[in-house]
Amino acid sequence: MRITALAGGVGGAKLAHGLAQILPPEDLTIIVNTGDDFEHLGLYICPDLDTVCYTLAGLANPQTGWGRANETWNAMANLKRLGAPDWFNLGDSDLATHIERTRRLKEGQTLSQITRDFCKAWGVKHTVLPMSDQPVRTIVETEEGDLPFQEYFVHRKCEPRVKGFRFEGADVAEPAPGTREALQSAEAVVICPSNPWVSIDPILRVLSLTLSPLRPPSPLPLGEGKGGWGEGVRVAVSPIIGGQTVKGPAAKMFSELGIEPSALAVAKHYGALLTGFVMDETDAQLREEVRGLNMRVLVTNTLMQSLDDRMQLASEVVNFIREAI
Amino acid sequence: MRITALAGGVGGAKLAHGLAQILPPEDLTIIVNTGDDFEHLGLYICPDLDTVCYTLAGLANPQTGWGRANETWNAMANLKRLGAPDWFNLGDSDLATHIERTRRLKEGQTLSQITRDFCKAWGVKHTVLPMSDQPVRTIVETEEGDLPFQEYFVHRKCEPRVKGFRFEGADVAEPAPGTREALQSAEAVVICPSNPWVSIDPILRVLSLTLSPLRPPSPLPLGEGKGGWGEGVRVAVSPIIGGQTVKGPAAKMFSELGIEPSALAVAKHYGALLTGFVMDETDAQLREEVRGLNMRVLVTNTLMQSLDDRMQLASEVVNFIREAI
Repeated sequence: MRITALAGGVGGAKLAHGLAQILPPEDLTIIVNTGDDFEHLGLYICPDLDTVCYTLAGLANPQTGWGRANETWNAMANLKRLGAPDWFNLGDSDLATHIERTRRLKEGQTLSQITRDFCKAWGVKHTVLPMSDQPVRTIVETEEGDLPFQEYFVHRKCEPRVKGFRFEGADVAEPAPGTREALQSAEAVVICPSNPWVSIDPILRVLSLTLSPLRPPSPLPLGEGKGGWGEGVRVAVSPIIGGQTVKGPAAKMFSELGIEPSALAVAKHYGALLTGFVMDETDAQLREEVRGLNMRVLVTNTLMQSLDDRMQLASEVVNFIREAI
Repeated sequence: MRITALAGGVGGAKLAHGLAQILPPEDLTIIVNTGDDFEHLGLYICPDLDTVCYTLAGLANPQTGWGRANETWNAMANLKRLGAPDWFNLGDSDLATHIERTRRLKEGQTLSQITRDFCKAWGVKHTVLPMSDQPVRTIVETEEGDLPFQEYFVHRKCEPRVKGFRFEGADVAEPAPGTREALQSAEAVVICPSNPWVSIDPILRVLSLTLSPLRPPSPLPLGEGKGGWGEGVRVAVSPIIGGQTVKGPAAKMFSELGIEPSALAVAKHYGALLTGFVMDETDAQLREEVRGLNMRVLVTNTLMQSLDDRMQLASEVVNFIREAI
């Protein structure tokens, strides 16, 4: 079964990794958010793309979820000593990725080409695609003004209250080569448990997938294609469990936008985009309400603490899709 | 006694370090070659400047003379894995220097300002000046064509036969702030045991100091000022001992240009620029010939294998200068 997954950073990478364990390379494509890419210290950094690739390659730091395992921090320590901006931590092994990517971009290579080459070098066999080769920049509109995503997320530690989001460049950015085809040809699209506002919405916007997060969902027959989607099922896995996020500011963002954070809120956010929804056992009591949004519902353990958890959840998602087809 | 030293990489850095041990910060300025600076992997790298600063700061790798002590190589290993150009080794701690320097240059800071800030951060108290804030590029003219210096030196391991040198940009590059003043106000200028052709000549050229390496020297009274020099004595320490260089291609370059490599050849190279010359005991038999070039001569141990050697040679050079004043 051909699946195309949409993913942001750590949570999305975990499910993508689980899917990669049970699907052959030709059956899984992962489209990754690049809205939180930024230039820092003269280097072009793609946090979500790197997290997904490192995770698939088995190179990721298992404690943090981001960055590299067995990392050293000598460049960073010396950058601090020289008074360089030090709010974004870059490990020594990780730095190589940014240095070589920046060098290749300046040579005129596209982010897609570079990602393909890097995946090959890292032994990643499944296809990882950036959502676009053109810059898209997620801006977090806060009560303290507009903040580029990493400024909000890392430098300001998600403290400023959120008022909204915009994705600069999203309307003119071309979807990266292969993304449209991957969506059209997939039997199912899986929206990984990433932040709906800042990890998944930029992908939906760039790929011109109908996005109406604040409208109530309209009923949609299972499997009906619309917009840029293919004809397959479309399933999201909730990043919110028991009203909280495992990692990151998704729950805080829902709250600050006046929406009670819950799996139900996530289901409503995607609304008519979805034909199915996967949420944690903790939230079993929301099952009927989500069903009322015209989605099939799978209730299972969605907290991925081990590699087994990732594979288990991936298997259940795949089975859930099979039943829906 | 105020001394201004001209230095290239490892050998020059050693003597500069010795001088810094025995002279207070206000009495020593070191002007460093930047003709072998280059851009690599998108980073602006100043090999000689970094070698001098790391050495003065006690941060240099004592085995290689270049790079940092206790260095790790994780970025480099990962750059290789990604297929990046890997002929120029960059350690993790060292990388911080290049990343932050490149960032500041792009912000519009000058190499002089950056070097001053870095020296402060590293605890270097003596003044280190790049020869210029504008780019000067040493090109090695070889039988295989023109090669930028690092391409010749590191990538091609000095193998191509040398036909000549040129210093692109040297005629329009302004001497860095403080360099002219340091030369004018110094009681003595010390040309460190660096490569005359590619480490010292670029400095002489940029500072418009009379440079006539291939002409026979004309007699010059001791202490007479000329060109951009001050009125003080001018002493060079031979980088060639017993017809060989301790490190680097200076002897090979003399040979390939048809000049028998020796301390005498170095003395002739600088010729009338010098009022004094320091050479190794191994070359004592050349003493009278060098004296015939109208220079005072100091014969001593010039091989610097330990910190004590550096300080010992620096002391003898300072005493030699005192006698000449």
